[in-house]
Amino acid sequence: MSKASTSKLSGFPEFLPSERHVEQLVLDELRRVFELHGFASIETRAVEPMDQLLRKGEIDKELYVLRRLHATEGDAGLGLHFDLTVPFARYVIENAGKLQFPFRRYQIQKVWRGERPQHGRFREFTQADIDIVAKDELPFHFDVEVAQVMADALARLPIPDTTMQISNRKVLEGFYLGLGLTDPLTVMQIVDKLDKVPRDDVHGMLAEAGLNDEQARACLDLAGINTADGPHDFAGAVRELGVHHPTLDAGLDELEQVRDAAQGADSVDVVVDLRIARGLDYYTGTVFETRMRGYEQLGSICSGGRYDTLASDGRNTYPGVGISLGVSRLLVPLIADGLTSDRSVPSAVLVAVVDEATRDQSNKIAHALRSRDIPCEVAASAQRFGKQIRYAERRGIPYVWFPESGEGGHQVKDIRTGEQYPADPHAWTPPATDLRPRIKE
Amino acid sequence: MSKASTSKLSGFPEFLPSERHVEQLVLDELRRVFELHGFASIETRAVEPMDQLLRKGEIDKELYVLRRLHATEGDAGLGLHFDLTVPFARYVIENAGKLQFPFRRYQIQKVWRGERPQHGRFREFTQADIDIVAKDELPFHFDVEVAQVMADALARLPIPDTTMQISNRKVLEGFYLGLGLTDPLTVMQIVDKLDKVPRDDVHGMLAEAGLNDEQARACLDLAGINTADGPHDFAGAVRELGVHHPTLDAGLDELEQVRDAAQGADSVDVVVDLRIARGLDYYTGTVFETRMRGYEQLGSICSGGRYDTLASDGRNTYPGVGISLGVSRLLVPLIADGLTSDRSVPSAVLVAVVDEATRDQSNKIAHALRSRDIPCEVAASAQRFGKQIRYAERRGIPYVWFPESGEGGHQVKDIRTGEQYPADPHAWTPPATDLRPRIKE
Repeated sequence: MSKASTSKLSGFPEFLPSERHVEQLVLDELRRVFELHGFASIETRAVEPMDQLLRKGEIDKELYVLRRLHATEGDAGLGLHFDLTVPFARYVIENAGKLQFPFRRYQIQKVWRGERPQHGRFREFTQADIDIVAKDELPFHFDVEVAQVMADALARLPIPDTTMQISNRKVLEGFYLGLGLTDPLTVMQIVDKLDKVPRDDVHGMLAEAGLNDEQARACLDLAGINTADGPHDFAGAVRELGVHHPTLDAGLDELEQVRDAAQGADSVDVVVDLRIARGLDYYTGTVFETRMRGYEQLGSICSGGRYDTLASDGRNTYPGVGISLGVSRLLVPLIADGLTSDRSVPSAVLVAVVDEATRDQSNKIAHALRSRDIPCEVAASAQRFGKQIRYAERRGIPYVWFPESGEGGHQVKDIRTGEQYPADPHAWTPPATDLRPRIKE
Repeated sequence: MSKASTSKLSGFPEFLPSERHVEQLVLDELRRVFELHGFASIETRAVEPMDQLLRKGEIDKELYVLRRLHATEGDAGLGLHFDLTVPFARYVIENAGKLQFPFRRYQIQKVWRGERPQHGRFREFTQADIDIVAKDELPFHFDVEVAQVMADALARLPIPDTTMQISNRKVLEGFYLGLGLTDPLTVMQIVDKLDKVPRDDVHGMLAEAGLNDEQARACLDLAGINTADGPHDFAGAVRELGVHHPTLDAGLDELEQVRDAAQGADSVDVVVDLRIARGLDYYTGTVFETRMRGYEQLGSICSGGRYDTLASDGRNTYPGVGISLGVSRLLVPLIADGLTSDRSVPSAVLVAVVDEATRDQSNKIAHALRSRDIPCEVAASAQRFGKQIRYAERRGIPYVWFPESGEGGHQVKDIRTGEQYPADPHAWTPPATDLRPRIKE
């Protein structure tokens, strides 16, 4: 039908079947955890009107704009969504009358950005978002809940250990106000640069923004507090800096609750890190970032927080709290480093074919196995059994079934061990661990 | 974050959570059946180079072309894929060295067309494709297999009865050659219009194409043969027309095998219909179309066939056989007509909260239930129990759990029946049918 080009497109990752199994395992596990916690799935269309996509302040991101090939009047006024938050906000407003609030939703979809591809950055990638949104008011315990859900999900994924870094905008804002500063957002955005800029330079930038030496040092001391290297009692450490403000107290209390609730799994280290501010201006309380051990250079693989105005339709305001997991961002590098599954097909059994005249007998055996939920396939041709076994081997199929023939009854062979024994297609079942593809150690 | 517009975009369907559950049930069932038959999942990127998309002969379809917002040099040379066959052909060539042939794959993804939206036609929609592709040669028994797999899948979906209409290009081609016609493809394309054009007009078009009256009548008689209204023995009916050709005999034999194999489920009526030719020029044998009872005006919801050249890289040819199911095409109208699920959330249980001070007790109950795979959520606020029950009711959650309190031990209430009884959060399990959302009768 087409003589396809063999050039791969940079920034648009695609997986081989055995790698796709890994992605399926990850997406299934995310879905399982999200649904156990009562999060409902939604999908939104891939496109949004350009004015929606450009409305959100933070975006100097490269978007893909759409044009119909035969259109005469220019662009369609539509672009591909670059995250799942803007479409979700639009969906909430559009369906507000039909949704039950508070509304827990998860959304696992691809998003697109026209950025220059680089390590861990793609033009097409999959995100998995959870958000809880309410009408007018969203109690704080939902911040605790999303942290717990995402920590629970991370702990179940076949990935390296992670560190979830949490902070709270109220801590920073209250601290800055307590210091007598009047523009906390500007200070936050400067302090947020500590990741990339040396401390002394940040000090200089704070001075330029009007802070005196003592204020700047206090801000940097606050940013230096974290429970990874420092004391477990972060609130005590903050209070030792001698700054007081009711917003600071409220933030410390919230932060403590989120930290305590998210802790649990050994593989997810939950740390308070007051350098985490998230540059975006819409966060108003809890903020999250997450690093993966050995892959710190990817930056945060899972980020989010509380925003008091996820959406507004003029009459109602919809506050939300959510976290977004970068599925492609973490999986593509892990798969490039060898993470894969033990099969290129879902089949647990290859049913051999004695000769083409008895292919139907093999089909019936396969049918019997499938009726008991055992994935299987029938050999493509009636080659000699040695070749059929190699056919299974190349695909990672663990069992080969030999139909009843002149020489004897049904036999099944575990081709990994060579063990072969009589079996009944209406009764035999492989061990549960062999039923589906598994992560290859 | 954004003051979202409430205007819905024509041709881009979106579902409410309770409707999305239906779509999830359908997609899960498709995946289950495809994997039971050994089909491996792949996903391809949403975009293809424009020259790939335009290469395929049949396409005068409207595509979406992409442009990076800040690009200065015009289009990115990329468009959104309009089906899953062109990307699959490209994927096969690109990864030929790493795939095991014959390669069974399923692919469930969205595709985009810039067409004017109309009943059953969308600009964004989900397709579920299965294909089997081989290198150089693909034995005929794979035609039988894809028909069986898709008939099996259709039978398990929560949709009206379907009629799978099958035909075979070799029957038509052999018959036309046996009649002495030299350009079978042209005849096929004229006969294919019988759906929309009266028989007499088609007769006239055949005459214009150079057929004599007897030849034209024979072609129309052939097209009139089907096992829905006519004889079960379609091969006999064809032979009664007195035309002979080895290709015709080969086609009739293949068609009989596919028909016999696909039959099985009561809800999928498999009929031979020799009017089905599929307009596309790349089919070379078996062809399929499928109608859904009561929704015939949608046209075919599931189509495909055999193509001897799915892809070619100059050295190797990759023949294939496959069928594509229009998931959105069938689901959107069914959902518009009321097909939905019994819940707007995955939760089977709402754990009530006695007062905010004991929310943690409710969280622990939820944790115990989840550890045994029971989806649940904790009430948003400690309202009086009557209000918490209505909270569950509005979401379709069947059970409300009342934590141990001053008045007694743990109690669970089936709010559909009003039945309430003591229960242990570490042991109680709802009936399996209540664990997940179900189709609402």
